[in-house]
Amino acid sequence: MKMYKDLNTSLRTIMTPGPVEAEPRVLRALSTPILGQFDPEFTNIMNETMEMLRKLFQTENHWAFPVDGTSRAGIEAVLCSIIEPGDRVLIPIYGRFGHLLTEIAERYGADVVNIETTWGQVFDPAEVILEIKKVKPKIVAMVHGETSTGCMQPLQEIGEACREMDVLFVVDAVASIGGTEVKVDEWKIDAAIGGTQKCLSVPSGMAPITFNSRVEAVLLQRKKIERGLTDPNTQQQTQNRTIRSNYFDLSQLMDYWSPARLNHHTEATSMLYALREGLRIVLEEGLEARIARHQLHEQALVQGIRAMGLDLYGDPSCKLPVVTCVSIPDGIDGESVRSMLLNDFHIEIASSFGPLKGKIWRIGTMGYSCRKKNILHVLGALEAALIRHGAKINAGQAVQAALDVYHNEEHE
Amino acid sequence: MKMYKDLNTSLRTIMTPGPVEAEPRVLRALSTPILGQFDPEFTNIMNETMEMLRKLFQTENHWAFPVDGTSRAGIEAVLCSIIEPGDRVLIPIYGRFGHLLTEIAERYGADVVNIETTWGQVFDPAEVILEIKKVKPKIVAMVHGETSTGCMQPLQEIGEACREMDVLFVVDAVASIGGTEVKVDEWKIDAAIGGTQKCLSVPSGMAPITFNSRVEAVLLQRKKIERGLTDPNTQQQTQNRTIRSNYFDLSQLMDYWSPARLNHHTEATSMLYALREGLRIVLEEGLEARIARHQLHEQALVQGIRAMGLDLYGDPSCKLPVVTCVSIPDGIDGESVRSMLLNDFHIEIASSFGPLKGKIWRIGTMGYSCRKKNILHVLGALEAALIRHGAKINAGQAVQAALDVYHNEEHE
Repeated sequence: MKMYKDLNTSLRTIMTPGPVEAEPRVLRALSTPILGQFDPEFTNIMNETMEMLRKLFQTENHWAFPVDGTSRAGIEAVLCSIIEPGDRVLIPIYGRFGHLLTEIAERYGADVVNIETTWGQVFDPAEVILEIKKVKPKIVAMVHGETSTGCMQPLQEIGEACREMDVLFVVDAVASIGGTEVKVDEWKIDAAIGGTQKCLSVPSGMAPITFNSRVEAVLLQRKKIERGLTDPNTQQQTQNRTIRSNYFDLSQLMDYWSPARLNHHTEATSMLYALREGLRIVLEEGLEARIARHQLHEQALVQGIRAMGLDLYGDPSCKLPVVTCVSIPDGIDGESVRSMLLNDFHIEIASSFGPLKGKIWRIGTMGYSCRKKNILHVLGALEAALIRHGAKINAGQAVQAALDVYHNEEHE
Repeated sequence: MKMYKDLNTSLRTIMTPGPVEAEPRVLRALSTPILGQFDPEFTNIMNETMEMLRKLFQTENHWAFPVDGTSRAGIEAVLCSIIEPGDRVLIPIYGRFGHLLTEIAERYGADVVNIETTWGQVFDPAEVILEIKKVKPKIVAMVHGETSTGCMQPLQEIGEACREMDVLFVVDAVASIGGTEVKVDEWKIDAAIGGTQKCLSVPSGMAPITFNSRVEAVLLQRKKIERGLTDPNTQQQTQNRTIRSNYFDLSQLMDYWSPARLNHHTEATSMLYALREGLRIVLEEGLEARIARHQLHEQALVQGIRAMGLDLYGDPSCKLPVVTCVSIPDGIDGESVRSMLLNDFHIEIASSFGPLKGKIWRIGTMGYSCRKKNILHVLGALEAALIRHGAKINAGQAVQAALDVYHNEEHE
């Protein structure tokens, strides 16, 4: 019989837009022996996680909990629990993940209206608001940070307009949460989805979400208690508005995440330990300090890339602070450079999707991966790999430019 | 600001029908630093996990991989990927989880036909086969091990009948996989779903599934490449048979788990490490030895319970070897006994659902929790708690009866 060896992985410097390196404390939390899902010690951990998620999302919402699946599980849970067949949903697209929102909404029967802008840019909020007035959707769904293009959409004006027009505003904050501001209440976001494996530096496998009473009202209208949990002799009123998915039914998840603790799935114990620890780290660092840290290292990376003579991709006025997109120089095989970075330097950076495939590299500065050691390592290695590939770049400048950024910061 | 303490959980003896105690080696694997999802080292781990899952499911199926979610995520992925609105699905129910299958199938628009038998029993296969002939369903979906009642349904005759009549046979083997025989190929199961947090002793959060080419054929007919991954200028033929869920779309997951590695979700790195380690442990122990171990400890538990003078619930001829249901003695508050076990002895056993709530306790003998120390501890503690609650039981007999079972085994 084939023998499978002990898990023995290389220690990578992961500078993609996620998954990034997990916090060492989070990794340790993962190895904690498990508790039963209804053990009071465990339900206390669930409650603490809800509290910390509210702080992360900067919200007073009662509902803030993880969906047990990867980020897109959270997106699907929110969309499928709100969208009823025929509902009009406006989805402005400025990258791949706007397409994903559209894909999911369409699968659940939404009448989706898209507006699109060139990749590498975002929307003028006024343009989106005009479209909302025209389309009169039930829901507007938007990506906050588009990792595919490294752009970030300003949301506040759109959120305010949605609230005024009684439209539900759903935001995919998977890439931005914990690395840059996501002000759920102030920006009038009705439901937001965060990611763990990016700026929280918790491994992939959970999707923190939050939603307010406006969303809750929709969910309660669609609520159905699961078969097998009610006495079989009790007739339940059949509703034709039932949420399609059982796993992603937020009205059932609310019962599970409330003192009722009505059985649904078996909460993913170890991943919840990890999320709790990741959130503790965020709160200990402080959101403000954490965002400033992300900006500092982004600046060091950007100055280094520029000093090398490489071009950044995308409109700088809407740059997502946690992802830096670099145009692959003419005549250079981007995948060959990536392979060299991985195999010789143990550094992972990302390519991109669809129309940007082969045209840009994407370098993340997220969470635990976002630190001085990694910035200096990636700049030095990228320079060396490019020289090795015959690219004409300014040798020796990149790391110096990054060091200047750090030096200036230290002397401020 | 409220401070959140270091994670510091009690070390419980978990004797529920899941989640049970995780294997210490699995816990260590969880704390391994992560790799990127497309890192060749990681995709190799994905491939090894597929190989080991085939052995676990005793199948030659190519497709065997985990869905990133808890067990019911795997069930929903299989059902929603196969079921098209209006499809007739026969679901024989003999406990709570047959209701769950029904719940999910109905949500995806199936025309569900149920037959039910008394809880505590299973179906005579001939009865199910007769119903298949009458109903002519596209799919038969059944639970293999019903943790709610502690019963196990014989599947082989039903599987053979399904194959003859060209009906797809879907089996929820969440509770049984890794603890008792689940012979996917021999029993003619077309798709099976396993659980991690039960007999595999891997924390909750992944759902291993397998399916054969008969199921694959259905999936390929419904396949759609995700928006944003194709060149936006390429028109894709719109299909009205598209699988409703994006996250659970097995046709997309096949692309992700194949050499194409087409981007879908971000694989839950740490949980995959855990699953791989759990599977290694199963293969090292050997399926046969592992099943024999589960039977030995079940026998010790059962003899101990009987020696105490307690009654087992359910028809013994169809007992699920990994769950033992005990009737709560008249006049005893079952929840009070459970609380005492948890608070004084740090042992968790389970109550049950629906019509069995308050009537039985359920004691699991699953995976790493299924060991001599735990059996002796739970018997001693249950006896003490029952005496403390004024129950009339045979004092001092339970642990002796279990020791006899172990003694006889050692001297065979």
